Amino acid sequence: MKKHFTQITLLSGLLVLATTSGRAADSTQGAIDFRESVMTTFKWYVQPMGAMTKGKIPFDAAWFKSRADGLASATRLDVSEGFPQGSVGESEAKPEIWDNWDDFLSKYQRLQDEAIKLQQVAATGDEAAMKEQFGKTAQACGGCHKKFRNKK
Amino acid sequence: MKKHFTQITLLSGLLVLATTSGRAADSTQGAIDFRESVMTTFKWYVQPMGAMTKGKIPFDAAWFKSRADGLASATRLDVSEGFPQGSVGESEAKPEIWDNWDDFLSKYQRLQDEAIKLQQVAATGDEAAMKEQFGKTAQACGGCHKKFRNKK
Repeated sequence: MKKHFTQITLLSGLLVLATTSGRAADSTQGAIDFRESVMTTFKWYVQPMGAMTKGKIPFDAAWFKSRADGLASATRLDVSEGFPQGSVGESEAKPEIWDNWDDFLSKYQRLQDEAIKLQQVAATGDEAAMKEQFGKTAQACGGCHKKFRNKK
Repeated sequence: MKKHFTQITLLSGLLVLATTSGRAADSTQGAIDFRESVMTTFKWYVQPMGAMTKGKIPFDAAWFKSRADGLASATRLDVSEGFPQGSVGESEAKPEIWDNWDDFLSKYQRLQDEAIKLQQVAATGDEAAMKEQFGKTAQACGGCHKKFRNKK
């Protein structure tokens, strides 16, 4: 009887453990999906501005401005929520993120600041200034990716 | 010689066509990625509010407010940009979207309006009002999904 009880207790314990790990895995994947989605929205706005800055497509001040507005809105989302401790998973995140959390946050803050400036500059319609500020914004993306992303 | 020229012309034509279709496919997939990413950010904010409203997790006014703030920011993104004409692709979008474009836009506008109201109500900390306004916001999601999404 005691053995039977122990077996049930052990089985329940394993079930609880399995459920808890399952939840943790779900939650980690949810966070990864969130952060990758936020980055995908950035890409949507950044790519046309990059193509215009490099002259791959004609410069269009109104289109550029609308992309800068979109990027400024997207960078209001707090992407750091999508990086719970150690959540590398199947993603491109480097473990260095959690050893340098303050630096990681400040690099995201820099992107937010540069994106707001880009939105302001884009409202003026000054092509040279827009391209220059786009360069600084792209550098903010790159500065973080270089240190914290394993590009696959 | 004429035959040879015709063959070259035909081949060039096919190459141009292939390249153009390739670009269109890239661009369509980019739009699908964008819209699906925007929806994933909505889910990130909506799920915890839903769980609190249904009593699956304890109500936490500050956490609810931060989710409502996040959703209001995310719904500033113009998801309709991610639905170029006929871009069903491998997605869950129904072709009815483009036959009812104004209705589709007004349904998204409703979500944006409800999300702003939710943010305002969440700032008051009134649990009952927050749960009620969350219900209206979730209805705005559901109203669009029911008509325009093939849930897979």
